[in-house]
Amino acid sequence: MRADGAPSVGPAGHRTPSFQEMWRELLPVGRHPDSGGYRRYAWTGADAECRAWFKEQAEARGLAYEVDRNGNQWAWLGDPTAGDAVVTGSHLDSVPDGGAFDGPLGVVSSFAALDELRGRGTRFDKPLAIVNFGDEEGARFGLACVGSRLTAGQLTVEQAHRLTDADGVTLPRAMEAAGYDPDAIGADPERLARIGAFVELHVEQGRALDLSGDRVGIASAIWPHGRWRFDFRGEANHAGTTRLVDRRDPMLSYAETVLAARREAALAGAVATFGKISVEPNGVNAIPSLVRGWLDSRAADQGTLDTVVGGIEKAAREYADAHGIDLDVVRESFTPVVEFDHALRDELGRLLGKDTGLTVPVLGTGAGHDAGILSGSIPTAMLFVRNPTGVSHSPAESAAEDDCLAGVHALADVLEGLART
Amino acid sequence: MRADGAPSVGPAGHRTPSFQEMWRELLPVGRHPDSGGYRRYAWTGADAECRAWFKEQAEARGLAYEVDRNGNQWAWLGDPTAGDAVVTGSHLDSVPDGGAFDGPLGVVSSFAALDELRGRGTRFDKPLAIVNFGDEEGARFGLACVGSRLTAGQLTVEQAHRLTDADGVTLPRAMEAAGYDPDAIGADPERLARIGAFVELHVEQGRALDLSGDRVGIASAIWPHGRWRFDFRGEANHAGTTRLVDRRDPMLSYAETVLAARREAALAGAVATFGKISVEPNGVNAIPSLVRGWLDSRAADQGTLDTVVGGIEKAAREYADAHGIDLDVVRESFTPVVEFDHALRDELGRLLGKDTGLTVPVLGTGAGHDAGILSGSIPTAMLFVRNPTGVSHSPAESAAEDDCLAGVHALADVLEGLART
Repeated sequence: MRADGAPSVGPAGHRTPSFQEMWRELLPVGRHPDSGGYRRYAWTGADAECRAWFKEQAEARGLAYEVDRNGNQWAWLGDPTAGDAVVTGSHLDSVPDGGAFDGPLGVVSSFAALDELRGRGTRFDKPLAIVNFGDEEGARFGLACVGSRLTAGQLTVEQAHRLTDADGVTLPRAMEAAGYDPDAIGADPERLARIGAFVELHVEQGRALDLSGDRVGIASAIWPHGRWRFDFRGEANHAGTTRLVDRRDPMLSYAETVLAARREAALAGAVATFGKISVEPNGVNAIPSLVRGWLDSRAADQGTLDTVVGGIEKAAREYADAHGIDLDVVRESFTPVVEFDHALRDELGRLLGKDTGLTVPVLGTGAGHDAGILSGSIPTAMLFVRNPTGVSHSPAESAAEDDCLAGVHALADVLEGLART
Repeated sequence: MRADGAPSVGPAGHRTPSFQEMWRELLPVGRHPDSGGYRRYAWTGADAECRAWFKEQAEARGLAYEVDRNGNQWAWLGDPTAGDAVVTGSHLDSVPDGGAFDGPLGVVSSFAALDELRGRGTRFDKPLAIVNFGDEEGARFGLACVGSRLTAGQLTVEQAHRLTDADGVTLPRAMEAAGYDPDAIGADPERLARIGAFVELHVEQGRALDLSGDRVGIASAIWPHGRWRFDFRGEANHAGTTRLVDRRDPMLSYAETVLAARREAALAGAVATFGKISVEPNGVNAIPSLVRGWLDSRAADQGTLDTVVGGIEKAAREYADAHGIDLDVVRESFTPVVEFDHALRDELGRLLGKDTGLTVPVLGTGAGHDAGILSGSIPTAMLFVRNPTGVSHSPAESAAEDDCLAGVHALADVLEGLART
C-alpha cells in the first residue's frame, strides 16, 4: 500500500493491486478453518493457488514470467540474460498451521516495492526480478529450501528424487501431479551467474526489533544450528508393581535433560528445544523401554553452540548413568553459521540510512532461509520487518500494517539503490 | 513337575504331561521372533492356540470341559452344579511383548496341582474346577479383565459390544471370527453362585518375595490405582528464533512434573509413572503447543494415593503457572482398593504353614487381576510365586523352576485343604 493509499500504476497505465489488496487476496488461500493456520505445502492445491496468484501479479505488471527448472517462479523487469540482476522475493509455502507472514510478506512486499519505484519514476540500469522459491519450509518432504538448494547445487537430483512425504508420495510424483517435470530439476549455475544481488524481506521471527523500537532491520548472519537425537534406553516394566528402586525408567533422564537444555541455553544466550519425542511402548501402565527426544539448538557462533550442546550431553550422560539408562546421542543435521555478504549488508545500511542519518539495526537470526542457501553462491542480504510478539510458525504470527509498509519502502529504497549504476 | 520327576497319572491311568512338559508346549505359542515377547491377544490365532492347549489338558485328565457364555474356559472335576466349588486358574493372554509367566504360570500350575493331588490320592468333597479367563490383559480392546468383568456383571453387554481394537474391529466381530457367539455374553450370577472359593496363582510382579527370601506368598490386597491425564498447553513457536524469555514451552512443565511424580511417590512409598506422552505438533524445530502426559499411580491405601497424586498435581500447577502454561488434569480411570477375603486369606496361611509352622508372607500388589474383579462377588485369594528381578510385562519376566514347583505344591495344599470338608 502506498502511504497516500493511491493505487499503483503498471507499465501500460493499468492499475495494479496495492499491498493491502494483494494481502487480502492471499489471506484465505490454504487457511485451515479450525486452526486458523496455513497449510500451504509444496505441490498441493493450496500451493498451486499461491503460484497462480504470483503469475497473475507478474502479468498484471507486464513482467516477463518464467518457471525455472526447479519450479521456482520468476517475474522479470528488463533482460534476464543481461547479467548483474537485482533479485528480491521469498516463498509462499508454509509450515503446518503456520502464520500468514512467513514467506508471503517478502513476495507481496516485492511487488509493492516495484510499484512504488515505478510511482517514483525510478530508472533501472540493471535487470530486476521477483522470485518465489518452491518448498522453502520443507513441511511436506522434511527438507527445507528444496527449490533454492537444487538451484544452488546443494541438493543432488538423486537426493531430491528420494524425498517422500508422509503418505509415501515421492517428490518427483508430487511435482508431476502438479504439472512440473521432475526430470528437469538440478543445479542452475547459469541462472545464478546472472544475479548480482539477492535481497529477501522477511517478517522477523523474534523480538529484537520490537525491543529496539525499530520497524526494519538488516540481517547479519544465520546462527549455526543443528538437530541431535537423544535415545534413552531403559527397561520396560509394569508401572503398578515395579518398585521405584528397581526401575530403569528412561523418562526420568529425559525429563532431567529437557531442563538441563533450558539451563545451558539460558547461560549461553542461545536456544535449545526438545519439541519432538517418541516413546516405546508408550503405554499408560508401562515404564518405557525407550524415550527418544530430539534437541534443536542454535547459537550466535559455533563455539557457543558447541558449549551448549556439549553441556546438555554431559548432563544427560550423568542422569542416564545415575538411573542405569543407556544413552546414545546422534547428530542428525548441522548447518554452520551463514554470514551474509558484508559489502552488500553495509550497502543496505547506507541506502536505508541516507535520508535519515539513522543507523538501521543489524541482527542475527536462528532461522534458515533461501537467502542463506544462496549466500554460498551469490551476494545475498535480508531485511526483517518488526514482529510485535516474535511469534512465528503459528497462526498467531503477526506484524502491524504500518511496519509492513515501512518494509515495502525500505525494500524499494534498497532495490532503487542497487539497480541503478 | 513332581519333585521326583515321575509323570502324573490321569483318571484312566494315562500319563499326563508334567509341569515342565506343559510349560514347554506353551512356550512357543504367540512368541514374537524379534522381541522374544508374547503377543497373545484376545480372539487372535495365538489366543486360539492357547485355548486349544487348555482343552487338550482338560481332556487328557478326563475333566469336563466347557466354555461359558463369555468365552471363559472351564475344566471340571466333579459336578459343576453341586455348589461350593473350589476354582483355581488364571489367564493365557498377554500384554504386547509380555513375558511367559504372567497368566500361564497360574493355569499350568493348576493342572499340575491337580495331578499332584491325584498322585497323593486326595479325595475331594467338593467340585473342583480350573479356569482360563478370556482377555485379562486388555491388550487388544483397551479394557482389562473383560471375561471376568462380564461374568461378574461389572461390564455391560452394551459396553462390551462397543469395545474396538486398533484396526477398528469390534469385540463382537472378533469373537464371531474366533467362533464364539457375541450375543450370548453377559453377567453370569448362577455360575458364580456355585463357586465357594477362587484361588489364583500368579508370578509376583515385584520383588517382595525376593527380598524376604520366600518362594511363595499370599495376596493381601490390590492397591487402589488410577490414571490421570495432564494436558500442558503452551504456545507453538519457532524453536530457532523465539527467545527463551518469550516462550511458553509446555515441555518444561511436563519435565518438571515427571520428576515431581517420582519424588512424591518415593516420599510416600507408592509408585507413580509417566509412561505415555503425546505432543503437538511434535516437530523438531517447533516449541510444542500441547504436551499431554498420562500418570499412572498406585499406593497401599487410598489416603496415600490421594496424597501422592495431590502432591504431583500441586507441583504441576506451580510449574505451569511459572511458565505461562495452562494445565488441565483429568482422572481417566480409578479402581479403589481390593481387599481379598480375610477368612480365605487366613485359611490359606494356615494350610501353607501347617507342615512347617512357618508364616507365609502376605503382600499387597499394584496390579489388577481377575481375582480382584471376582472378589466383589465371591471369596477370592491369590498366591504369588517369587520373581527374582520383579520384571513383568516384558520378555525378561522370569521365575526359577524350583520356585514354580514350590508354587504348584502350595496350590495343591490349598486346593486339598479347601476341597475337603
